Amino acid sequence: MNTIETQIESIVDSILSDYQHGRDIDKVDLKRHPDKAAVIDMIGKLLRIVYPGYFRDTSFRMYTSRHNLSMLMEDVMYNLNKQITLILQSGMDDDSAKEKSQAICLEFFRRLPAVRATVQTDVEAAYAGDPAATSTDEIIFCYPGLFAITVYRLAHELYVLGVPMLPRIMTEHAHSVTGIDIHPGATVGNYFFIDHGTGIVIGETTIIGENVKIYQGVTLGGLSTRAGQGLRGKKRHPTIEDNVTIYANASILGGETVIGRDSVIGANAFITHSIPEGTTVSIKSQELQFKQRRCADCATPCENWNDKI
Amino acid sequence: MNTIETQIESIVDSILSDYQHGRDIDKVDLKRHPDKAAVIDMIGKLLRIVYPGYFRDTSFRMYTSRHNLSMLMEDVMYNLNKQITLILQSGMDDDSAKEKSQAICLEFFRRLPAVRATVQTDVEAAYAGDPAATSTDEIIFCYPGLFAITVYRLAHELYVLGVPMLPRIMTEHAHSVTGIDIHPGATVGNYFFIDHGTGIVIGETTIIGENVKIYQGVTLGGLSTRAGQGLRGKKRHPTIEDNVTIYANASILGGETVIGRDSVIGANAFITHSIPEGTTVSIKSQELQFKQRRCADCATPCENWNDKI
Amino acid sequence: MNTIETQIESIVDSILSDYQHGRDIDKVDLKRHPDKAAVIDMIGKLLRIVYPGYFRDTSFRMYTSRHNLSMLMEDVMYNLNKQITLILQSGMDDDSAKEKSQAICLEFFRRLPAVRATVQTDVEAAYAGDPAATSTDEIIFCYPGLFAITVYRLAHELYVLGVPMLPRIMTEHAHSVTGIDIHPGATVGNYFFIDHGTGIVIGETTIIGENVKIYQGVTLGGLSTRAGQGLRGKKRHPTIEDNVTIYANASILGGETVIGRDSVIGANAFITHSIPEGTTVSIKSQELQFKQRRCADCATPCENWNDKI
Repeated sequence: MNTIETQIESIVDSILSDYQHGRDIDKVDLKRHPDKAAVIDMIGKLLRIVYPGYFRDTSFRMYTSRHNLSMLMEDVMYNLNKQITLILQSGMDDDSAKEKSQAICLEFFRRLPAVRATVQTDVEAAYAGDPAATSTDEIIFCYPGLFAITVYRLAHELYVLGVPMLPRIMTEHAHSVTGIDIHPGATVGNYFFIDHGTGIVIGETTIIGENVKIYQGVTLGGLSTRAGQGLRGKKRHPTIEDNVTIYANASILGGETVIGRDSVIGANAFITHSIPEGTTVSIKSQELQFKQRRCADCATPCENWNDKI
Repeated sequence: MNTIETQIESIVDSILSDYQHGRDIDKVDLKRHPDKAAVIDMIGKLLRIVYPGYFRDTSFRMYTSRHNLSMLMEDVMYNLNKQITLILQSGMDDDSAKEKSQAICLEFFRRLPAVRATVQTDVEAAYAGDPAATSTDEIIFCYPGLFAITVYRLAHELYVLGVPMLPRIMTEHAHSVTGIDIHPGATVGNYFFIDHGTGIVIGETTIIGENVKIYQGVTLGGLSTRAGQGLRGKKRHPTIEDNVTIYANASILGGETVIGRDSVIGANAFITHSIPEGTTVSIKSQELQFKQRRCADCATPCENWNDKI
Repeated sequence: MNTIETQIESIVDSILSDYQHGRDIDKVDLKRHPDKAAVIDMIGKLLRIVYPGYFRDTSFRMYTSRHNLSMLMEDVMYNLNKQITLILQSGMDDDSAKEKSQAICLEFFRRLPAVRATVQTDVEAAYAGDPAATSTDEIIFCYPGLFAITVYRLAHELYVLGVPMLPRIMTEHAHSVTGIDIHPGATVGNYFFIDHGTGIVIGETTIIGENVKIYQGVTLGGLSTRAGQGLRGKKRHPTIEDNVTIYANASILGGETVIGRDSVIGANAFITHSIPEGTTVSIKSQELQFKQRRCADCATPCENWNDKI
């Protein structure tokens, strides 16, 4: 046992030394870092404010609606204020951070009715757009697309209000839960519907119009990122105009690429140039090869047939 | 502080007013809504009933198997009954809802041995189909494909028994955990293997035969959903016959599309017409462009080379 | 009520009988099975050791760094030792399992500084490669790609040290959280960047060089798995040389496929043959079809226009 303890102590020493290299991973003075668990909890509470009947905490059933909402809001306000103050303190003195954070939080909450109005349009778009939807209740309870869109809309308000990092933590949480990756900097119009959703990537400078519908695996991305940090701030992601539908696994790339209104982009399409309005774009039979997997003599496919793809 | 409190009260007022618009998102009378956390807990317990040795709660080790199982079943039965009764009460009187729910629950449990027999074939298919699998234990412990398939098979029974919403909540949970989206209405034969799985979408009216193997990113989807709710109830998703293998990111779309038995669909294929049996379908070299990324003078690629994709 | 109880007992009997079939799913003697919750907890603690300032448990703030680290390490060491011993006991006597497990754990911890050095390069690659990244803090806090890569690098050390199953449980957890599926057996060089990531699959025998960047939906996979278990141990997955960039949804398949250094593989490309160094590969305009979605008489697209994709 002594030998094991000695070896463990020796390892502890070597890791502690390893912490002294001053690299990004070695930083320890991060009193001011966001608390991910608190952010996830806050997202849950914001969803209860957005959809008051759907995600209600059953322990609150005894209180009045006003009391419920006040308690929820004060809880969220307190934590949001704390997180934003922490993040802002990296760049200014404590008092300025507190003052700015307070102003941001109040403005964020003032915008909630506007966010809710937008979210209602997203619910309607989902119901109209999905033959499998049996009710709007079902959509609100369990559609991952609506969850990701709601979190994005809340995060986007904080992004526009100038909050660093926190909006991204929120959308990355939604990304983890749903597989849908919407950067909080994207701009998205009303009646936005995401069906299935896994694998969707919507880049920071994407602009999406009204009544747009997108399916799983769609990328609205950048053309080339070899310029890395040099591209920050520029429009790198496409513009999707009103009433466009983009089917599964299509990729639309580039800051100057515009998909004209009323267009339909077919599954697996790969687009790096603008498309005029009212156009249907699809893959022309993809030059598929068809091979019959049978020996000349056999009626049924052979186990040994080489079906190298 | 007073000013802040006044501002918060004012915001609470505005949001409470906002709740009075009578929209879908404003509904509050939802005593009868499913409890997602309870459903997720129930899924975990159902998995312990399906795989008694694998996900055993260690605190039960002191009881006999019969006692373990009785306790688990009563717990699940109680919660399942409660959830289904709540959901049914939206459409009928309380007593009818209770009676129907009870009958559904008993029938669901009677079907568990049949579900287990099917799940055993899925385990065998995974082991036979994946060179990376070292044991069936490993598959049951950690393969996301098997988890998603198991949850789908349980949800499918409830779907067939006419339970609204709950089957979808179950499969959306599996979707969140695994990235695999199988609608509980799909019909899937034995020996079903999903490898990797992230991004798979299997639509509500899909029919899948025996011994089918599918990879990540595959969509078995609808051709066009512009008719929205008007398409509900119709067959919109393809039929996949026995022994078919579908490789990564292939899309097979349309209610009349049939992939004939023994066929192999290659990665990234995009199919909207039926395929005869025993056919290998692959992309014919995709018309790729190859450009050498070097200046005429340099031996090594240039940082400034324009590699616009 | 009696009737219900009788019916439930009858169902319990039938399921207990169903457990007697001796199939994989019926195994109950699994004292020696890994505890997934303990593994997930362990991953969280390992991340706190790798990034001491970023995921610090606030309750430890009062202790010295040395004390913090010792406590964390002993916790992880204890649990890792326990899990590995359990897994090894399936194949050897208890004492040998304990001894081997202890040795593996000590060696794993000795390698942590080397793993940290590699992870630092991954952080730098992410910052350099992503125009949307505002700081390395943001990357470490919330980039799913970095999370998946970090978990992979830790799991890989255990894989190389010969630990069965546990490395796969770790990477499947990361897969569930991020949608990124990296087999712990893969070999990956420094400065590895995954952007967005959902849907990525990196197979067991993949070899990746230095400074490689890959995007969502990329598969580095096998050509054909019809030989199932017969392929285990062979190189089935591609080799990606230094400085390669692979864009979204590309598939690169086959154990003999080598992507030459400095190459760029475009979005949606499908590659089953080696690519020479310094090559840009892209889809040649994909033979897209463009149809104007308007009736001859109308100026605007018609709702009834058949836009079958």
